[in-house]
Amino acid sequence: MHEQVFFDDLNVGDIFNSISKTITETEIIEFGWKYDPQPFHISKPDALTSNFGGLIASGFMTAAISFRLLYQSNGFQTTSLGSYGIDELRWLKPVKPDDTLSVSMEIKDLRRSKSRPQSGIATCYFKTINQTREVVMTMESAWILKCRI
Amino acid sequence: MHEQVFFDDLNVGDIFNSISKTITETEIIEFGWKYDPQPFHISKPDALTSNFGGLIASGFMTAAISFRLLYQSNGFQTTSLGSYGIDELRWLKPVKPDDTLSVSMEIKDLRRSKSRPQSGIATCYFKTINQTREVVMTMESAWILKCRI
Repeated sequence: MHEQVFFDDLNVGDIFNSISKTITETEIIEFGWKYDPQPFHISKPDALTSNFGGLIASGFMTAAISFRLLYQSNGFQTTSLGSYGIDELRWLKPVKPDDTLSVSMEIKDLRRSKSRPQSGIATCYFKTINQTREVVMTMESAWILKCRI
Repeated sequence: MHEQVFFDDLNVGDIFNSISKTITETEIIEFGWKYDPQPFHISKPDALTSNFGGLIASGFMTAAISFRLLYQSNGFQTTSLGSYGIDELRWLKPVKPDDTLSVSMEIKDLRRSKSRPQSGIATCYFKTINQTREVVMTMESAWILKCRI
């Protein structure tokens, strides 16, 4: 178990890092089939003749995996109260089978909630990189976290 | 098969609608366990004592299902070239087991691509509603589509 990270433990500029995960062809196709059945997510022949030249992961999958990697690699398990949204999500490079992703997250802004006592909103900038350190995705997200006090 | 919708068929202000889908408890927990294991997405007892008062769907799941509903309900299957990002995604209301979602999408802006011939970028505003017509999610997304000409 990681040490718990509460809202009041955070400072603007803090950076959190994640473990790595290799993306498999199987999960790309399974996720695509269930949630994002564009040809280049579910069909190897169709993907081959697409602009991408091969299978790529759904961007929704990359976003969710990026969040999970960061979440499970740090002490937010018992302090997260969810999120109300995302701004400026950018899929910069395709994520392909056998790519290995890891995530860093920087705290950009912090404000104590007025409406919800003992919670605060952290503006978080996620950056997801692959095994050659190319940035494949960035997103800014509003994370609601419990306060210690 | 729907009639194909190409970039040059679109006008600003056009609205597309989707079929409906009922969200099940099983898929909320399965998606959460795989991609977003926050307690209120994977554990009924933990969800009950959370601020949400019960299980809710991962916002990443709601976003992906919203896209799929709209995509498969209209003629974008062979004309979609993917997306480079999302702006202003807002999760406005929790999505709960047995909620039935449907989506409308409005074309907000259109610009022909300079870098990629025979394609254009449609700025699309997605609105996801539940069975009581509450808006549960909105997002603006940049959809790259093939041109006829």
